[in-house]
Amino acid sequence: KMLGRVLCTVLFVGTFPSPAGASQGHISVVLLGATGDLAKKYLWQGLFQLYMDQVSSGHSFTFHGAALAALEPGQRRMFDVLKKLSCPPDEAPNRCAVLKDQFLKLSQYHQLKSAENYTALSREIETLLRQEGLKEAGRIFYFSVPPFAYTEIARHINSSCRPPAGAWLRVVLEKPFGHDLQSAQQLAAELAGFFREEEMYRVDHYLGKQAVAHILPFRDQNQQFLDPIWNRHHVERVEVVLKETVDAKGRTSFYEQYGVIRDVLQNHLTEALMFLIMELPANVSSAHAVVQHKLQALQSLWGLERSSAVLGQYQAYDSQVQEELQEARGYVSTTPTFAGVLIRSDSLRWEGVPFLLTSGKALDERVGYARVLFKNRAYCTQSGALRDAGHSQCKPKQIIFHFGHGALNTPAVLVSRNLFQPVMPRDSWKEAEARPDLQVFGQPLSDFYVYSPVKERDAYSVLISHIYHGRKDFFITTENLLASWAFWTPLLDSTSRQPPRLYPGGVENQHLLDFEMVSGGVAFTLAEPAELLNPSGQMPSDFRAIQSKFRQSPLVSAWAEDLISQLASDMEEAAVRSVARSGQFHLALSGGSSPVVLFQRLARHHYGFPWQHTHVWLVDERCVPLTDSESNFLGLHRHLLQRVRVPYFNIHPMPVHLNRRLCVEEDRGAELYAQDIVALVANASFDLVLLGVGTDGHTASLFPRSENGLEGAPTVVLTESPVKPHQRMSLSLPLINRARQVFVLVLGKGKHDITTLLSRVGHEPSKWPISGVSPSSGQLVWYVDYEALLG
Amino acid sequence: KMLGRVLCTVLFVGTFPSPAGASQGHISVVLLGATGDLAKKYLWQGLFQLYMDQVSSGHSFTFHGAALAALEPGQRRMFDVLKKLSCPPDEAPNRCAVLKDQFLKLSQYHQLKSAENYTALSREIETLLRQEGLKEAGRIFYFSVPPFAYTEIARHINSSCRPPAGAWLRVVLEKPFGHDLQSAQQLAAELAGFFREEEMYRVDHYLGKQAVAHILPFRDQNQQFLDPIWNRHHVERVEVVLKETVDAKGRTSFYEQYGVIRDVLQNHLTEALMFLIMELPANVSSAHAVVQHKLQALQSLWGLERSSAVLGQYQAYDSQVQEELQEARGYVSTTPTFAGVLIRSDSLRWEGVPFLLTSGKALDERVGYARVLFKNRAYCTQSGALRDAGHSQCKPKQIIFHFGHGALNTPAVLVSRNLFQPVMPRDSWKEAEARPDLQVFGQPLSDFYVYSPVKERDAYSVLISHIYHGRKDFFITTENLLASWAFWTPLLDSTSRQPPRLYPGGVENQHLLDFEMVSGGVAFTLAEPAELLNPSGQMPSDFRAIQSKFRQSPLVSAWAEDLISQLASDMEEAAVRSVARSGQFHLALSGGSSPVVLFQRLARHHYGFPWQHTHVWLVDERCVPLTDSESNFLGLHRHLLQRVRVPYFNIHPMPVHLNRRLCVEEDRGAELYAQDIVALVANASFDLVLLGVGTDGHTASLFPRSENGLEGAPTVVLTESPVKPHQRMSLSLPLINRARQVFVLVLGKGKHDITTLLSRVGHEPSKWPISGVSPSSGQLVWYVDYEALLG
Repeated sequence: KMLGRVLCTVLFVGTFPSPAGASQGHISVVLLGATGDLAKKYLWQGLFQLYMDQVSSGHSFTFHGAALAALEPGQRRMFDVLKKLSCPPDEAPNRCAVLKDQFLKLSQYHQLKSAENYTALSREIETLLRQEGLKEAGRIFYFSVPPFAYTEIARHINSSCRPPAGAWLRVVLEKPFGHDLQSAQQLAAELAGFFREEEMYRVDHYLGKQAVAHILPFRDQNQQFLDPIWNRHHVERVEVVLKETVDAKGRTSFYEQYGVIRDVLQNHLTEALMFLIMELPANVSSAHAVVQHKLQALQSLWGLERSSAVLGQYQAYDSQVQEELQEARGYVSTTPTFAGVLIRSDSLRWEGVPFLLTSGKALDERVGYARVLFKNRAYCTQSGALRDAGHSQCKPKQIIFHFGHGALNTPAVLVSRNLFQPVMPRDSWKEAEARPDLQVFGQPLSDFYVYSPVKERDAYSVLISHIYHGRKDFFITTENLLASWAFWTPLLDSTSRQPPRLYPGGVENQHLLDFEMVSGGVAFTLAEPAELLNPSGQMPSDFRAIQSKFRQSPLVSAWAEDLISQLASDMEEAAVRSVARSGQFHLALSGGSSPVVLFQRLARHHYGFPWQHTHVWLVDERCVPLTDSESNFLGLHRHLLQRVRVPYFNIHPMPVHLNRRLCVEEDRGAELYAQDIVALVANASFDLVLLGVGTDGHTASLFPRSENGLEGAPTVVLTESPVKPHQRMSLSLPLINRARQVFVLVLGKGKHDITTLLSRVGHEPSKWPISGVSPSSGQLVWYVDYEALLG
Repeated sequence: KMLGRVLCTVLFVGTFPSPAGASQGHISVVLLGATGDLAKKYLWQGLFQLYMDQVSSGHSFTFHGAALAALEPGQRRMFDVLKKLSCPPDEAPNRCAVLKDQFLKLSQYHQLKSAENYTALSREIETLLRQEGLKEAGRIFYFSVPPFAYTEIARHINSSCRPPAGAWLRVVLEKPFGHDLQSAQQLAAELAGFFREEEMYRVDHYLGKQAVAHILPFRDQNQQFLDPIWNRHHVERVEVVLKETVDAKGRTSFYEQYGVIRDVLQNHLTEALMFLIMELPANVSSAHAVVQHKLQALQSLWGLERSSAVLGQYQAYDSQVQEELQEARGYVSTTPTFAGVLIRSDSLRWEGVPFLLTSGKALDERVGYARVLFKNRAYCTQSGALRDAGHSQCKPKQIIFHFGHGALNTPAVLVSRNLFQPVMPRDSWKEAEARPDLQVFGQPLSDFYVYSPVKERDAYSVLISHIYHGRKDFFITTENLLASWAFWTPLLDSTSRQPPRLYPGGVENQHLLDFEMVSGGVAFTLAEPAELLNPSGQMPSDFRAIQSKFRQSPLVSAWAEDLISQLASDMEEAAVRSVARSGQFHLALSGGSSPVVLFQRLARHHYGFPWQHTHVWLVDERCVPLTDSESNFLGLHRHLLQRVRVPYFNIHPMPVHLNRRLCVEEDRGAELYAQDIVALVANASFDLVLLGVGTDGHTASLFPRSENGLEGAPTVVLTESPVKPHQRMSLSLPLINRARQVFVLVLGKGKHDITTLLSRVGHEPSKWPISGVSPSSGQLVWYVDYEALLG
């Protein structure tokens, strides 16, 4: 057989160092989609590079291209590709020519269409190895196919192509890995039916880019310099950017479904950001530790809101879509081709540091980089030119991982000379040559230590080598993937109806896409120029809070996000007014899930809230310890109190846990709380009470037909909930009704029925406790989102 | 009499608008030190300007120069000065010549030496007014004399020169107003014996500089633009700077006593800073409101520490002092001629924003300015030159009040064009002409809106006019002065022994005086170059913490400030170690005044302290409500807890206040606390207990001969203090002795006797409870400052 001959040839090529025998075993690489674009452009070259690198490793190889085409045409097409494989410049031409010849001989085409095809492939591999007396080390299946084909192929591989015990299976998957959290979960679940987690290698080719791949090693090798400054006290901002000059022409059928966030930010830019911000594992070579730390970094990020992003679309996009997708003339796409996103982390290290992720098509230049800009902490006593002479501490300080393109036009690591001279591995990175005229980020290149790779390597070659070495930290784990989608999906959802700003493309964009951070989010710097506004006038309009009446009281209604921001603003206004009037603001808050977003918004957007003068009370509490995950107070603490500066004395959790036991009558917790209220709150009249409504019409912890709290004295009561934990403590209705203002927040489709019901019934607190809320001299306002109101 | 003639002349000069008569009354201006430098250079010219401006106001004037010299020579010298008075360019030469002639005729010289001289002056004024039939409006006494002469002159004025009832007295005082808080208090007390507060006008001539004086009006008139950005969220830093090229040559007898902080920072720069950071009064014309708000701003500043400043001295200074003061060759002065100081405010508006005050002699240029630099919040999508085209939001944003000199060489207000176009009063400020080549603060002048005064006015003219108009907000009140000294004196004290960095002067300083913010303070950016080190080797050395033994336990001793920083670092280290070991750090803290500085240091310098995982317990508490000013917990809260992020649940105040009563046995507060400790602290063994020592040998609230807590069970006890409030709650000695580490902090001369005693006595807890502290398996460390140790 041809293959036998080839293996012999390989093993006996005398000019190359070669182990005693193929003692490490044989590796079969199967490239599915062997004649597709990606395979043509990168993958075969990457496999050839693998072969050149590993020919003397002690492993033997065979390469199996596969596609749906029949044997003969497929084979011809594939070998047309293989013949064009190039020799890298650093390889001796002779050696390369010999190896290329061998590589071609080790490569075979297979039609993989039916179950039988897969079985036949597997049998062929087994037969060959038996004949040659080779042990099987493992099989690599590289999926270079559209995602809709994944499941089918995976099923076949799992059922027919698994190697024998003792040898490994590695399947390599290319993005997209889903379209949002739900679809990614579904795809992940399907794949999990066929492969174990350690068998899957999800490719994000950014992790193979040399400058991205060097972020962690750089941080590790330069710990002595970075430890004191790699934190919120020293870092002003982090930018991760991919700018493209091309547009989506010719690719709109893909692009229209994805857009820039799914195409670039969710994967490439997020991955690069994680390398920058994750805690450095003690051992950066530990794939497990890297993957875990990266996941933790992802989980430390604040949730994205609509205001976290600015979106743009180049002007020609709509007509390209109309043409390529045969859409009608008036078709208007809201798919963004530009996005700038502000990300923040909760971690102690990064709290308050803005991370800006930006990408777009049809911009003024092609460039990708991750940039850490440090704060200017210096005062330079000299003036003018003297001030900036030498490596003045007053010049900007930054570290840039330059992915490629741009003015530099090479992968590079740049460190401002007034920071430190970095430690770089000499075998793989070299100091770049001086280029006196070159400016990067507003500074001459000479202001930086600049390193570029000794040998530029294509990302796919790098990744194929990592697959071979089983370096899972260069790939996306399922957990990581889902965490990333969990992070991005809310933004995708909340911006899906939003018209992106139109931009002309290239340098003509001028400052149209510049954006800035404003009150917790980002916004374009320039107002939308009228002439660029979409002429069709068919854009979904911005959703504004509308005002009317509900149960004879004012009603504010809007989509949930707008409603929450309105409510938060109204609360701040009430607080400021109250502090101006009395020096204090007594606020009673409900627990539960609805107010979580409100609490977050108050903490993140309302810097002017007079927390120093605010007293925070609980409307109700579950009879659990305050640190129990069921505790209302714990939720309030996590989402609000630990982020703002309410003085310790002004925080009033309900005393459900006294004498180390829960809500025992004789401990008189409810009485104590009532006494505290009387002692501190003038006239026991809270300035503002925030309530919710249950599907059964309960509010606070006052349930239908409750024996306590629906009438009688304005006090604090112990009540029974129909759901666990049953025991509760609650303000009574009469106490709530003494408040100056009561805001009721109702969110979500699940509340539609009770909302409808409440709009019809009168004052029947024993059936629907919420209907008894009616401040005797205060104001009641309903905040009901469209889903609850309209179903 | 000559004067009679003159007044008639004035009242009948037909060419000038003139009121019906001198109905507003007569003002006598007495300039003490009439032939001194300041008078020659500024004051007479200022008085002449006042006369030109107010000749038609309805007031009549006489001007009385006074000095110690006899009548004849004094008169000659004074008129030599007066003859040289110049006419301002904007004044018609004719009018000015006539007015100058009149001014000379209205001016008289007086010898003021003895009590009789003062009585005679007063009588002369009265006689004149009676003769002329003029009502007296008031008298201005301008003290242009050395401060040692103040008291004597003040006494004479008070006893002999007060105007009759209905007319006012204004005395104008020139700095220095004391040398530190104590001397300023003494001088203020003396003056208060002679003058009422409203009679005194303390001059800081910076308040008369046009750019300084316009800070508040600017903030007021541009509120619409500044309101959203004049705060910590938008301002990156504030700089107030006065750089001089001259050195102290010829003035060292003054300078050697004062130095740059007293000469410039305590007064000029502080005043300018206050105008920038004070809350804007509703009415900026209200002198009272301005003075009050300025005082509040001063009081909001963090206390200065030694690390708050970098100090320098130009190299030639020592030899100048040796020559001018006839000091010995080896004389070494530590008087700073350069200072960079980092100031921070506690206010909600400015928390976290660094204020940098810098001044020095022998620098590279002469310039003064106050500069507010805003944060860069923008991302500019274009690259390179496109990015900075136009008024890009990515260019620096700043507002500069340019006091004078420098490249601009005029008072000016500069606002970055990417900020806003400011509202400026057209009658007094005009847009400055373009100067294409001029760069200011690294930007072309064209990047700013630039305004300069329509008419440049000398500071003294401005201030003399304000004295005339009674605008007290342009002068330093006693309260303000003392608050400023209270702020600066601790820094002066703590740096008095510190050798300043030597610098060559001028451009040769290179980056030697550049400094940067590091861990809460400032430090020179460059290490001290060896060749510039003082060659005498006689500098006081830096005080380092020394280590030895005390009562068989480790002793750390140093001057208080160093001791506190060592202790804080040791605490952080203990905390980090404990969290690494167990995930938690249980810290029990004592109250009282000694730990206040420690708490502040922990809050301000120890960003790495794992507060999220720290539990804070109290060692002892007074039986008062937690919000009582006597409460240990309140002190702890104010100085530490409200500045760091300890989770609510991890804060454990002692339950001295239960059931709305204090330390009642049957409320079982001590037992509850003990139970909490047992429940949360493994083995009831605190990771660290911080103790103090009383002069009677008490520690925690365990007093000599206490019935409780000195022995027995490891528990929490109620005790009796010999001083009020008598009732206390305290950890018992056996409980303290279970701790892993106990640190005892002893500070100050007042503790010297007990420290000496303790060094001799054995284990006698009933006499000296502190002697019973002896952790059974933990470590005890003493932190005793030199004053307590050495007396």
